[in-house]
Amino acid sequence: MPSTRLEAFSDGVLAIIITIMVLELHPPEGASWQDLVHTSGLSLLTYVVSFAYVGIYWVNHHHLFQLVEKIDGKVLWANLFLLFWLSLFPFTTAWMDDTRLARIPVLVYGVDLLLAAAAYALLEHVLMTRHGSDSVFHQTLNRDVKTIISPVLYGVGILAALCASSLPPRAGVIIALGCYVLVALMWIVPNPRVERSLR
Amino acid sequence: MPSTRLEAFSDGVLAIIITIMVLELHPPEGASWQDLVHTSGLSLLTYVVSFAYVGIYWVNHHHLFQLVEKIDGKVLWANLFLLFWLSLFPFTTAWMDDTRLARIPVLVYGVDLLLAAAAYALLEHVLMTRHGSDSVFHQTLNRDVKTIISPVLYGVGILAALCASSLPPRAGVIIALGCYVLVALMWIVPNPRVERSLR
Amino acid sequence: MPSTRLEAFSDGVLAIIITIMVLELHPPEGASWQDLVHTSGLSLLTYVVSFAYVGIYWVNHHHLFQLVEKIDGKVLWANLFLLFWLSLFPFTTAWMDDTRLARIPVLVYGVDLLLAAAAYALLEHVLMTRHGSDSVFHQTLNRDVKTIISPVLYGVGILAALCASSLPPRAGVIIALGCYVLVALMWIVPNPRVERSLR
Amino acid sequence: MPSTRLEAFSDGVLAIIITIMVLELHPPEGASWQDLVHTSGLSLLTYVVSFAYVGIYWVNHHHLFQLVEKIDGKVLWANLFLLFWLSLFPFTTAWMDDTRLARIPVLVYGVDLLLAAAAYALLEHVLMTRHGSDSVFHQTLNRDVKTIISPVLYGVGILAALCASSLPPRAGVIIALGCYVLVALMWIVPNPRVERSLR
Repeated sequence: MPSTRLEAFSDGVLAIIITIMVLELHPPEGASWQDLVHTSGLSLLTYVVSFAYVGIYWVNHHHLFQLVEKIDGKVLWANLFLLFWLSLFPFTTAWMDDTRLARIPVLVYGVDLLLAAAAYALLEHVLMTRHGSDSVFHQTLNRDVKTIISPVLYGVGILAALCASSLPPRAGVIIALGCYVLVALMWIVPNPRVERSLR
Repeated sequence: MPSTRLEAFSDGVLAIIITIMVLELHPPEGASWQDLVHTSGLSLLTYVVSFAYVGIYWVNHHHLFQLVEKIDGKVLWANLFLLFWLSLFPFTTAWMDDTRLARIPVLVYGVDLLLAAAAYALLEHVLMTRHGSDSVFHQTLNRDVKTIISPVLYGVGILAALCASSLPPRAGVIIALGCYVLVALMWIVPNPRVERSLR
Repeated sequence: MPSTRLEAFSDGVLAIIITIMVLELHPPEGASWQDLVHTSGLSLLTYVVSFAYVGIYWVNHHHLFQLVEKIDGKVLWANLFLLFWLSLFPFTTAWMDDTRLARIPVLVYGVDLLLAAAAYALLEHVLMTRHGSDSVFHQTLNRDVKTIISPVLYGVGILAALCASSLPPRAGVIIALGCYVLVALMWIVPNPRVERSLR
Repeated sequence: MPSTRLEAFSDGVLAIIITIMVLELHPPEGASWQDLVHTSGLSLLTYVVSFAYVGIYWVNHHHLFQLVEKIDGKVLWANLFLLFWLSLFPFTTAWMDDTRLARIPVLVYGVDLLLAAAAYALLEHVLMTRHGSDSVFHQTLNRDVKTIISPVLYGVGILAALCASSLPPRAGVIIALGCYVLVALMWIVPNPRVERSLR
């Protein structure tokens, strides 16, 4: 089966996730700069982070499926599993936002990121088993170091948020958010081997 | 006529249905685990069920249209009829949620599921009549047992919710939800004959 | 230029319009049948009408573009003009709903329907001028009687709502809604000449 | 890599942006013409402007990608950067709206427009470097005067809003909005050289 509809559906879901988060950006009450910064400053910041995250997933998903030759029902479900964890971003982002980056919401956001990353790795794995070891897909995507470092970094972030009470005030949350941003930076450039393979 | 636009439009509608339900997931008021569980626990649970349901419909719709060779106006309408009942999922889910799984909302949710299943069966039937009895479509999808068992199970669930007052407390609702989940499990694996036919 | 992206974008916009209207369907406060009927009864009814209307536009748009051979910038804008009036459906429907079918909202709903119909006729006209008089497009879609009757019926409906105060109570609104439904029924079956031409 | 998925994803995001703004159009409280004009008059006006703006971006994006032969990861990100600024339109529009066109929200709206225009120019530039100087893309889109005039006009508008307190009442806001509308008018007709090249 071709992957056209899987890609179209994923594009649709990701397009909606990335865009509906803007509905959570309530316009400030007043009309001054202070109103903008106080009411919407933090929301705008977390919006940027979550927009970037969904963008990163889309870019990597895009590159991943450039090499896919065939799919089946299991691939559809592995993909839906990834979309599920991504679909919770607006919810976890909004909670983090409303509580002004409280410890537990930041932790839950990290868990959501970790599960999305795990689902992405699973999707890659399921695709791997469907392509022979001599396929372009296999040879290009095998042994991707980033899929090993990411969960470790997320784990550190989540732990920092978990132990925040034994750390200096705000330190736990700052370390956690730092880890999340670090993983994001790591994935901004999609796998260069994909583009090389396609050439 | 090719079915490309029908598939693209369905992908769009299903992508939106599956994603906007997250807008109903209001972030908890406070920042503790209790807040998360009390305010959003049940919503998250019903979100998972409804996400899975829309996912199941998408996967089966995906497989169904792999075999379709031609469509016409009637197929477009049969498909829109299915999308209509699916589009009510966010509404029926939210009601069930707000009333913490009260009897009638659970019943109405079941009726919505039943009508979506009936619309799916109708779509399959309309497509069947458009493909000759010697077509791959006809030979692969004819006599699908699941389309017979599903309405029976939905019926049992709806009846249980209807007679909930003559049953031990919560029993009616639990039986109903159990039936709904059972049908979902039945359809998670899309028709394997489709993949075999395509090979 | 091919019309693929125009169709994909229109599918996206129509998919969203048809689905976000469900966000206006607020779940009932209580958990009884009365709550469902009183709070959501009318909304469900107008939802059905608007869903049907968007569905009708999609089906006819689908058939229209089956015959299109080439497009240009003007066609893109004529299409966007149509999408604009359709995008107001959730707004006009919600107003009609909130006021329980008051005279002016029903009138405004009719004006929106009329302008959408005019935009559709304009789109058809713009496409007509881009296809020679010997093209399949021209020969199939020329002289479509429905595009003449529809504005007349809408006009009657709008007039009835306008003069509602000189008519028996509710008569104006009922005539208006009757006219709107009548036009919808007329367009449910997409132009059969399109399917014949494609064969 | 082909640009199909980039176009599909952009269509999805733009379709959602253009449509969710209608969710901000709250239906009037009462059922009279006055209610419509007072509650929704301004919102409808800004809705038209923002709808037109997103439409203009879509039409120009559509023409731009007609000539694109190949893309890579950087193009994906340049495109996402454009979508980011466009995705803020519902937010900046709503703020302008809620404050009934106050000085700072009008200024912020202009900054958003300017950044979207800069992102569009960047996307065009990135694409330019990926196509040889003898490619159709290069020869058709090189030296587009509009990309130079637009930022100047936006700058004048933003300045007018900034200095509104030293100008007669409302003059700053009117000049600013006038500039924004002027740029929009300039871009309504997509680059005619694209259609000529395709022929």
